[in-house]
Amino acid sequence: MTSPAASGLPATEQLSVAIVGGSGYAGGEFLRLALSHPHLKVTQVTSERNAGMPVPLVHPNLRSLTNLKFRKLADLEAADVIVLALPHNSAAKQIETFEALGQVIIDLSADFRIKDPELYAQYYGEAHPAPQKLSEWVYGNPELHRGDLRGATRIACAGCFATSVILGLYPLLKLGTVLPKDIIATGLVGSSAAGASSSDASHHPEREGSLRVYKPVGHRHTAEAIQELPGRFPLHLTAISTPRVRGILTTIQTWLPDGYSERDVWGAYREIYAEEPFIRIVKMQKGIHRYPDPKLLDGTNFCDIGFELDVDTGRVVLMSAIDNLVKGTAGHAIQSLNIARGWDERAGLGFAGLHPA
Amino acid sequence: MTSPAASGLPATEQLSVAIVGGSGYAGGEFLRLALSHPHLKVTQVTSERNAGMPVPLVHPNLRSLTNLKFRKLADLEAADVIVLALPHNSAAKQIETFEALGQVIIDLSADFRIKDPELYAQYYGEAHPAPQKLSEWVYGNPELHRGDLRGATRIACAGCFATSVILGLYPLLKLGTVLPKDIIATGLVGSSAAGASSSDASHHPEREGSLRVYKPVGHRHTAEAIQELPGRFPLHLTAISTPRVRGILTTIQTWLPDGYSERDVWGAYREIYAEEPFIRIVKMQKGIHRYPDPKLLDGTNFCDIGFELDVDTGRVVLMSAIDNLVKGTAGHAIQSLNIARGWDERAGLGFAGLHPA
Amino acid sequence: MTSPAASGLPATEQLSVAIVGGSGYAGGEFLRLALSHPHLKVTQVTSERNAGMPVPLVHPNLRSLTNLKFRKLADLEAADVIVLALPHNSAAKQIETFEALGQVIIDLSADFRIKDPELYAQYYGEAHPAPQKLSEWVYGNPELHRGDLRGATRIACAGCFATSVILGLYPLLKLGTVLPKDIIATGLVGSSAAGASSSDASHHPEREGSLRVYKPVGHRHTAEAIQELPGRFPLHLTAISTPRVRGILTTIQTWLPDGYSERDVWGAYREIYAEEPFIRIVKMQKGIHRYPDPKLLDGTNFCDIGFELDVDTGRVVLMSAIDNLVKGTAGHAIQSLNIARGWDERAGLGFAGLHPA
Amino acid sequence: MTSPAASGLPATEQLSVAIVGGSGYAGGEFLRLALSHPHLKVTQVTSERNAGMPVPLVHPNLRSLTNLKFRKLADLEAADVIVLALPHNSAAKQIETFEALGQVIIDLSADFRIKDPELYAQYYGEAHPAPQKLSEWVYGNPELHRGDLRGATRIACAGCFATSVILGLYPLLKLGTVLPKDIIATGLVGSSAAGASSSDASHHPEREGSLRVYKPVGHRHTAEAIQELPGRFPLHLTAISTPRVRGILTTIQTWLPDGYSERDVWGAYREIYAEEPFIRIVKMQKGIHRYPDPKLLDGTNFCDIGFELDVDTGRVVLMSAIDNLVKGTAGHAIQSLNIARGWDERAGLGFAGLHPA
Repeated sequence: MTSPAASGLPATEQLSVAIVGGSGYAGGEFLRLALSHPHLKVTQVTSERNAGMPVPLVHPNLRSLTNLKFRKLADLEAADVIVLALPHNSAAKQIETFEALGQVIIDLSADFRIKDPELYAQYYGEAHPAPQKLSEWVYGNPELHRGDLRGATRIACAGCFATSVILGLYPLLKLGTVLPKDIIATGLVGSSAAGASSSDASHHPEREGSLRVYKPVGHRHTAEAIQELPGRFPLHLTAISTPRVRGILTTIQTWLPDGYSERDVWGAYREIYAEEPFIRIVKMQKGIHRYPDPKLLDGTNFCDIGFELDVDTGRVVLMSAIDNLVKGTAGHAIQSLNIARGWDERAGLGFAGLHPA
Repeated sequence: MTSPAASGLPATEQLSVAIVGGSGYAGGEFLRLALSHPHLKVTQVTSERNAGMPVPLVHPNLRSLTNLKFRKLADLEAADVIVLALPHNSAAKQIETFEALGQVIIDLSADFRIKDPELYAQYYGEAHPAPQKLSEWVYGNPELHRGDLRGATRIACAGCFATSVILGLYPLLKLGTVLPKDIIATGLVGSSAAGASSSDASHHPEREGSLRVYKPVGHRHTAEAIQELPGRFPLHLTAISTPRVRGILTTIQTWLPDGYSERDVWGAYREIYAEEPFIRIVKMQKGIHRYPDPKLLDGTNFCDIGFELDVDTGRVVLMSAIDNLVKGTAGHAIQSLNIARGWDERAGLGFAGLHPA
Repeated sequence: MTSPAASGLPATEQLSVAIVGGSGYAGGEFLRLALSHPHLKVTQVTSERNAGMPVPLVHPNLRSLTNLKFRKLADLEAADVIVLALPHNSAAKQIETFEALGQVIIDLSADFRIKDPELYAQYYGEAHPAPQKLSEWVYGNPELHRGDLRGATRIACAGCFATSVILGLYPLLKLGTVLPKDIIATGLVGSSAAGASSSDASHHPEREGSLRVYKPVGHRHTAEAIQELPGRFPLHLTAISTPRVRGILTTIQTWLPDGYSERDVWGAYREIYAEEPFIRIVKMQKGIHRYPDPKLLDGTNFCDIGFELDVDTGRVVLMSAIDNLVKGTAGHAIQSLNIARGWDERAGLGFAGLHPA
Repeated sequence: MTSPAASGLPATEQLSVAIVGGSGYAGGEFLRLALSHPHLKVTQVTSERNAGMPVPLVHPNLRSLTNLKFRKLADLEAADVIVLALPHNSAAKQIETFEALGQVIIDLSADFRIKDPELYAQYYGEAHPAPQKLSEWVYGNPELHRGDLRGATRIACAGCFATSVILGLYPLLKLGTVLPKDIIATGLVGSSAAGASSSDASHHPEREGSLRVYKPVGHRHTAEAIQELPGRFPLHLTAISTPRVRGILTTIQTWLPDGYSERDVWGAYREIYAEEPFIRIVKMQKGIHRYPDPKLLDGTNFCDIGFELDVDTGRVVLMSAIDNLVKGTAGHAIQSLNIARGWDERAGLGFAGLHPA
C-alpha cells in the first residue's frame, strides 16, 4: 500500500494490463472498460479453453475493437497490472506466481476479501490457502476505503450483492440513523451473476421469466457485509433470480430510532456520499422513475440509492441498484485502480447508461 | 350465507353468469375460466368502452370460443351469478342494483373485503359507501373460509398480494410455529396486476426488464392480511414490479421460536393444508425447481409454498407463488363459487400449467 | 391403417400410454396433455438419465398431478399407445422393439415423416435406417391427412416450423390462389424448440433478448414442406431465434395471380379450413391483435393464420402462429390420435390460452 | 453544404446545441451522446409537456450528468446546431423558424429525407409542406453520403429500418453482386421504435413477449430505400414487433447471379465498407455469435452485417443489425455531424456495447 511515487510509476502513466481468466463475464467486463481507459493498455488475456482464439469470439461486443488473442496461463508474461478473474479459491492458491509477474494485482474473486480466516472458513467451507497474505489486500470498495486504496498494490474487489447491501446501509449504520436490530436485505439478481458457464438452471427455457429464490439463507456475501459495516448487528440476506441478465436491486428493511425522520436519512446519505462520483440518491415525488431501477444502470458504474419511511411503524425501506458486472465487479475495480494510481476517479467509467433499454 | 338447497337452486345445476366490467384483466380471466366450467354459462359481459363489440376483440384468446358481445351496464339483465370486476369503490356504491338482478354476487374488487369500516377508511382513504352490507360478505379465501363459503351468496374475493401473504403465513401463525415479531413480506409482481389500462409506467420500453419498487410501505393489502391472520402482530409489506406479466413471488421473513425446527414448519403446513387441492409444498433437496416459481403457475389455481431455515439465527424464509389473476383473483373466485354451490371444488380449474413456459 | 373396430379396440375406450423419452420437452408436453385426456391413461414414462426419479422433478408443472416415476427404456412394458419422443434417428433404428410392445405408435421425431428415402438422406445427411417401414406411417398433420389418420396405427408427427409453413400455405397452393414462384418463409422461433439440453447458445445471459438467425438456409423442415405442399415450387426457409420460450411466428411472402384479390385469399382459407376446429383466421381491421401472435397461443392447439395484400405489387404476406410444443408437436399428436381412434377431435385440447400472458 | 472553413466555424471548435422535442426517445438519445461529445455543448432542450422540469425526470439515465431543464419551443434561442426531434410533418412546417436560429440543422424526422415530393406524397399521404427546401438537405447516411456531408448544414437523418436495409444491400446492388429481382426485407423491431408515448399496443402486458407483424406491406421506409439504393428494383418490406426494447434485425432475401459465389459477396462488402468505422461483417464458422444480433449493439453506433448462401438455389440471406436509436437515429446524426464539421468521425460514439446484456 504505497503511493504511486513510491511504487516507481509516474503520475501520468500508461500501464500494461494482463487479465487472467478473461473468458468469463467479470474478466470480459474489465477488458471492455480497460480498452477505453486512457491509462491502461491490455496486452494479455488468458483462457485455458480458448487459448489461441481471438478475444471477440467469446466477447463479441469487442469485434473491431481489439486484436488480442487468448493465451494459456502458462504463457503469462509480466505486466504492470494483473487482473485475476478466476473461480473462487483459485487465485489464492497460486498468488505467488502472480506476485512475481506484476506490481499491482487486482483480484475479482472472493479470495482476499475476508480479513478474518475464521469468517472465511465459516462461509467458504475450507481453510484459506494463504492467510498470511490477507493483510496486504485492500477491500475494493472505493466509498469506504478511498484512503486505503491510494497507492494500493493489492485490491480485493468486493462482491456484487455485498456492494449493493454495504452501499445502501453504510451511512445509516455509521451515523446511527437506523437501529441495529434485525435487518433484512433481499437481492433481486440477474442471470449474469452466476457466470458464463451454462447449466440446467441457466438453460433459457428454464430461466427466462423465472422468479426463483436461489439462496434464501447463508449467502456468502453476508461475510463481507459483516466485515465492512459498522456494528456487528444481525444482517440477513436472501437472493432471488430474476429474468434480467445484468443488475441487482436490493431492498433493505431497517428501523428508524425514536425521534428520527426521513430528513435524517437524507442527511446521513448526504453527509457520507456528498462527494461520491458514482452514488446517486434517487427519491422523487412523482414520475415512473421515483426509485432506483437496475434497468437504467446496465453498463454504468453508478449505485442508485433510494428509501421510503413508513411513518406508522418507523420502518425504512432502503433500495440499492447496481450493474453487478460494473459497480458490482469490474467497474469498482477500475475505480479502485484509478484511486490507487491517483488518476481521475472517473477515468474509463463515463458511460451514462441507456434510456430506454 | 345459506345452503344451496335453501337458496332454491338445485345441486346439479347450470347457472347463468353476468360479468360486469368484463374488458379488464380480472373480468376477462373469470370469463376464460367460466367458459369451460361445467356448471356455468356466461350470458352477459359488460364494458362501457367496448359495448357492441365482440368479446374476443378485447380478449383475443377467446376467439372461436365465444360469440358474446359486450353490452353497457345499463343493459344488464338478471343472471344467477353476477361477477363484479369494477374499479375499487365502484361496486359498493351501486350494490343494490346488482342485488336486484342476481342471487349470487361475486365481487373481485376490494370493496367488501374489509369487515372493519375504520380499517377500510385507513387504507382506502375514504369512508366505506355501504358499511351496513359488510357483514353479508364472505372473504373469498377458500383455505381459511371453506365453511363460511358453503352456501354463500356474497363473496368478496381476496387481493392477489394478500393471498400470497396469507396462504404463506396462516398455518404458522395459527399454530404458533413462527414468532409474531416483525414479519417482512416482499412481493415481486407482474405487470398485469396494475390492470388493463395503459400508462406511462406500463409503456413497454419503460417497464420491460424493470425491477422497480412501486409500494415500499403502506400497501393496501396489509389491511386484508391483518384481518385474516391470527394475532395482530406487525406485518410489513413491500411490493416490487418485475418484468413478468403474470405472477407473484412473495418471500416472507419470519422467526422460529426456541426449540422449533424445520420439521415443525413442515408439520404446520401439513396439518392445515393436507387436504387442500390447490396448495403444494415445494421444497426439494436438489434440482432447479427446488422452490416455488410463478413462472410455472401461469393460468393455474395453485399456490406453491416453500421455506428454508437459517439454523444459525432461527430465521425462516417462506416463499409463496401464485398467478395473480387466477389463484390471486378469478381462480379463487371460481373455487369459492364451487364451494358455495357444493360442486367439485376443482371444477373449471384443471389447467396444470406449462413447462417450459 | 385400420379402423378402430378392425383394430379390436372399443369405440369408447381408455388406452394405456407409454412415453419413451419423457424427460424432454416434447415428451413432457404429450404427458401434460395426456394426463387430462378422457381416453388416455399414462402408465409409463422412460428416461435413461432420470430413471427412478419422480416425473415432477423434471416437469415441475405436474406436481400433485402424477405419481409416475421415470423408468429405463430397458424396463418398458406393453401399452396400447407408445409415444416416441427420442432424438432424431433413434426411433427408426429400434422400431421393431416398439412394434412388439404397442399397437399404436406415435413418433414425435423426424424419423418417419419423409416418405422418400432420398429426400430424407438429402436433408438428414444419412441413409434412412428402416426405409421399408416408411409407407406404414401417416404424416401427422390432421388438416391435410384426416382421412388417412382414421384408424391409423403409425403416426409420424410433423415438424413444428414445417407445420406453421404448411398450414399457412396449403389452401392457397391447393387452390392456385398464390403463384408458385419463389416463396420466402421466415420463422421466428422460441428457445424451447432447441430442446431441454443446456448449451452455450441456450445459456440465459447469451440467449435472453437475442434476435439471432440460426438457420438462414438449408432448414431440414424444408423437406416436409416440399413433400406435403401441392406443386414442387421453390420454397425457401429462414429460421431466427427470438427471446420467447414457446411459439413460432412464420411470415410467408407470396404473390397473387393476376385478377385475384384479398377476397380470393379469404375464400381459399374458408373453403379448406371451414370445419377445422383448431385453425382461426385472424385479420382484423383495428385493435392491437389484428394479426396472429404466438404470445396468445402458449399451451393451446390453435394455429392462427392472417394475411395482408400489397395492392401495388400483388405481394401477399401470410402469417402463421402456433405453440411449437402443442400444435407444432404434442398437440397435433393428440389431435391425430383422437382422429385415429374416432374420439372427439378436441379431446384433451380444450385450453383457451391466456390473455394477458 | 459548405466546408467548416467557409461556414466560419473553427476546425477545433465547440458548438452549442439545442434539441427541439427533447422528451422523446430520439431527442433523448441525441442528448445522451452529445453530453459526452468533445465538440458539443447542449444548452437547450425543449418539451412542451415537461417545460420547467429537470431533464433527468424524463431521461433518468442522465441523473447527475446534466442540470438542464426543459423549456418551451417558444423560448428557443439561437444555437450553433439545432436538432429537431419532432413528430413527422412538424419540422417542415416551421423550418424557417429554425433556420433563423441556427446555422446547422439536423432533422431526425422523415420530413426532409425524400427528395421527390411525389414519392413523399405517395408514402406520407399528403403534399410536402416545403418542397422547395428539399434540395438543401443531405440524406444522413454517412456510408453513402460521406462526401455530401462534408460541410453540410442541413442533415436529414435516415429512418431506422431503412438504414438497416440500405446498409445491408447497398454494396451488393452497387456492384451487381445480387440480382435485382424481388427482394424481401423482414425487419424485427424493438418497442422503442414506436416512440415514447404509451398506447394500448405498448401496454406492457400486451406487448411483452409479443411477436406481431405491425406493417406487413406499405412501410414508409420503402421510399427511402428506393431513393438511396442503386437501380429501381422491386424491394418489399415487412416489419414485425419483437419483445426487445431497442434494436432491429433485418433479414434480406436476395439472389446471386450465375457464376457468383460467397466470395463475391465478401468482396463487395470489403470493397465498399473497407474503411467504414461503424460497419462490421459478422460471419463466423462457429460459436453462438456467428451472425449479427442487435442484443450486442444496444447503445452502439455499429451496423453488423452477415450473410449466408444457399448453394442449391443461389439464395443469399443478408442480415443487418443496428440499435434503432443510435445507428438508426441519433448515432448516425452525430456521425454525420462529425463528418460535416471535419471532426473525428468516431467522436462521441465510442461505446463498445455490452456482453452479456
